[in-house]
Amino acid sequence: MRMVDLIEKKRDGHELTTEEMTFIIQGFTDGSLPDYQMSAWAMAVYFQGLTERECADLTMAMVQSGDQIDLSKIEGIKVDKHSTGGVGDTTTLVLGPLVASVGVPVAKMSGRGLGHTGGTVDKLEAVAGFHVEIENEQFIELVNKNKLAVIGQSGNLTPADKKLYALRDVTATVNSMGLIASSIMSKKIAAGADAIVLDVKTGAGAFMKTLEDSEALANAMVQIGNNVGRQTMAVISDMSQPLGFAIGNALEVKEAIDTLKGQGPEDLTELSLTLGSYMVYLAKKASSLDEARARLTQAIQDGSALETFRKFLIAQGGDGSVVDHPEKLPQASFVYELQAKESGYVSEIVADEIGTAAMLLGAGRATKESEIDLAVGLVLRKKIGDYVEQGESLVTIYSNVEDIKAVKEKLYNHISISKERVSKPTLIYKEIV
Amino acid sequence: MRMVDLIEKKRDGHELTTEEMTFIIQGFTDGSLPDYQMSAWAMAVYFQGLTERECADLTMAMVQSGDQIDLSKIEGIKVDKHSTGGVGDTTTLVLGPLVASVGVPVAKMSGRGLGHTGGTVDKLEAVAGFHVEIENEQFIELVNKNKLAVIGQSGNLTPADKKLYALRDVTATVNSMGLIASSIMSKKIAAGADAIVLDVKTGAGAFMKTLEDSEALANAMVQIGNNVGRQTMAVISDMSQPLGFAIGNALEVKEAIDTLKGQGPEDLTELSLTLGSYMVYLAKKASSLDEARARLTQAIQDGSALETFRKFLIAQGGDGSVVDHPEKLPQASFVYELQAKESGYVSEIVADEIGTAAMLLGAGRATKESEIDLAVGLVLRKKIGDYVEQGESLVTIYSNVEDIKAVKEKLYNHISISKERVSKPTLIYKEIV
Repeated sequence: MRMVDLIEKKRDGHELTTEEMTFIIQGFTDGSLPDYQMSAWAMAVYFQGLTERECADLTMAMVQSGDQIDLSKIEGIKVDKHSTGGVGDTTTLVLGPLVASVGVPVAKMSGRGLGHTGGTVDKLEAVAGFHVEIENEQFIELVNKNKLAVIGQSGNLTPADKKLYALRDVTATVNSMGLIASSIMSKKIAAGADAIVLDVKTGAGAFMKTLEDSEALANAMVQIGNNVGRQTMAVISDMSQPLGFAIGNALEVKEAIDTLKGQGPEDLTELSLTLGSYMVYLAKKASSLDEARARLTQAIQDGSALETFRKFLIAQGGDGSVVDHPEKLPQASFVYELQAKESGYVSEIVADEIGTAAMLLGAGRATKESEIDLAVGLVLRKKIGDYVEQGESLVTIYSNVEDIKAVKEKLYNHISISKERVSKPTLIYKEIV
Repeated sequence: MRMVDLIEKKRDGHELTTEEMTFIIQGFTDGSLPDYQMSAWAMAVYFQGLTERECADLTMAMVQSGDQIDLSKIEGIKVDKHSTGGVGDTTTLVLGPLVASVGVPVAKMSGRGLGHTGGTVDKLEAVAGFHVEIENEQFIELVNKNKLAVIGQSGNLTPADKKLYALRDVTATVNSMGLIASSIMSKKIAAGADAIVLDVKTGAGAFMKTLEDSEALANAMVQIGNNVGRQTMAVISDMSQPLGFAIGNALEVKEAIDTLKGQGPEDLTELSLTLGSYMVYLAKKASSLDEARARLTQAIQDGSALETFRKFLIAQGGDGSVVDHPEKLPQASFVYELQAKESGYVSEIVADEIGTAAMLLGAGRATKESEIDLAVGLVLRKKIGDYVEQGESLVTIYSNVEDIKAVKEKLYNHISISKERVSKPTLIYKEIV
């Protein structure tokens, strides 16, 4: 088999065989295929796309390129949730304890990552003592006991994907639906998921800015999952404005606690219940989505969801009392209110720009070396459609520096107020179940 | 300027600026742009094409990537001819002396190359003593004196093109009209041509198999030439069957001599007069194409074309008497006739397959290391449209080995005879003047 022939085949719009897809990924991983052939192939894929079958093959070839996490010692069906990323997305923190509390095993491998705020591990570290440096065996034991544990990323998962992504990043071949979908799915599968729930964001703060692209990506991923024997469901949810109110690490932990108590933001609660019910259903802990949702609502009302969170924190060295006393979380030195300059209806809160404002405060990492300030961030006091009086607070700003002129300016520039009444944006555009 | 942005720009179908095209070629030549970005860019070009302006910029950037031959000490306008390559194409051997005999300076830099037969240098070396290892100054002196000299390729011409071609060859990006056209034109311009005449072949034995592709390539090259200040004309000529009768090195030299005497094959003579009249006209040695053609016809009739060839051979150490005694050229040990198995009209002589048969005899190089046998080759006794009697010779085979079973089989397989009358193929499909 010669790579040049496979590039030509794809270039001319033909479907590659499973054997050919595997040859490409294996050769690229072991270095026998040079980068310059791989990038030409990726560009051909950009123009010609990948078929459903090719996507499944690519995904599994990337899974097989490295280590695969063995979760077989964990009882039950392991369902993993993945979000394509947004601003102020606290669903992961909520969903873990929520679905664990009804018996779904959640064995989460999580990282730190770059972005507007830290990753799940960073956020949880806002709880004093909490850590994810646990042994694999302890991790499995904890999931079996409490149904929930988080471990830091380790092992050499999907090296082919890492290498391919790095190459795509410098050759203008990132934006290929098939390559994006295969990349995401390969990571979930290598991490041991039996079933997968996807939250594909759409709008200004999302990777996919249009509903059309978001749908295409969601469909591609659901097809891959189902084609490789991992039942997969997806929602397409709004990321034109940030989800919930909080954007920041400790602030989001507090928001998660509020939500687990039934006192969280409406949109965050709704999305968590929707995604959670998919997880419960796929884990076969309910025989319908409605039944799954009812069980989750009950777990919030009877306090078992919150209790699961407390136990989970304590089991990994954390101070479980934060669930009753969120004021024990890191606190910022300065608290400012961003006052509305005029009265009217909030018509726009541009998610990615608001996220960048939080990062300016120190809530996120711009580079791998950046230090995160866990205490700082933003809490939205108004969301799109809300009425605000002149002088009333739009956003509370938690900062550890006094001078927040640039942050305020950014916020004012990206929050619009209209004299006309504005309707709330749709939260969930589509469900693929 | 970042290469990834330029790849994206081309990928999205936008036109790159002159500055951007130069940045790409300079960076690729000096190694600051990695191959994997260049190949992704080439694939984007494959899909999106290059505009007329981009082709001109690419061509000149490749010219400037290396040495440029300075022919300014040669009097007159230097017109170079280029053929996109075919089988049994003796036009270069004919055209040099033909146009030189009416005062057009022909300063030919030529190589050996791979293919069905040798390159121009190989063919001329069939004349005892002839050599192209001459100094640059002597070369220029000879052209000024005899209007014709041939020198072996030297210097580092268009290294960007060499490097890019090598990369395209292994990344399925050879077949891009803009890249092909720029590659050919950059080499001609770097070799010092003031004006260029192109013979774009079309059909089975040509690089471009369809008339449509051949036209597109011819138009692209003519546009480039005219856009970079090199007046360019082109013909699209038939290569469904070999041109002329002879395929082989000494055999083609003899055919060239015949043609210069006015006794050559009809198609070779006609194509040489057409291309030659362009060269004479572009060199301003005639005020119209008709006048140019008349001068060339006269040069054949009065013997001055043949005389120019003789002088040229002698000036470079060759035995000039071959023009009167072609039997002094290398002779093969065995001569066979390929007898027609049936009577009828020759309906097909598949050019590339016939070329391969000549290569099997040793007339051409399969790899750079292959030795060429100058004596061997084929002479067609019939061409498409000719009537042949059963048992009459279709091809004379000149061989230095006795066993030519494989060659005969190949020839029989690719020469068809029909009971129906067959018309001769069009020789010149189009002229772009």
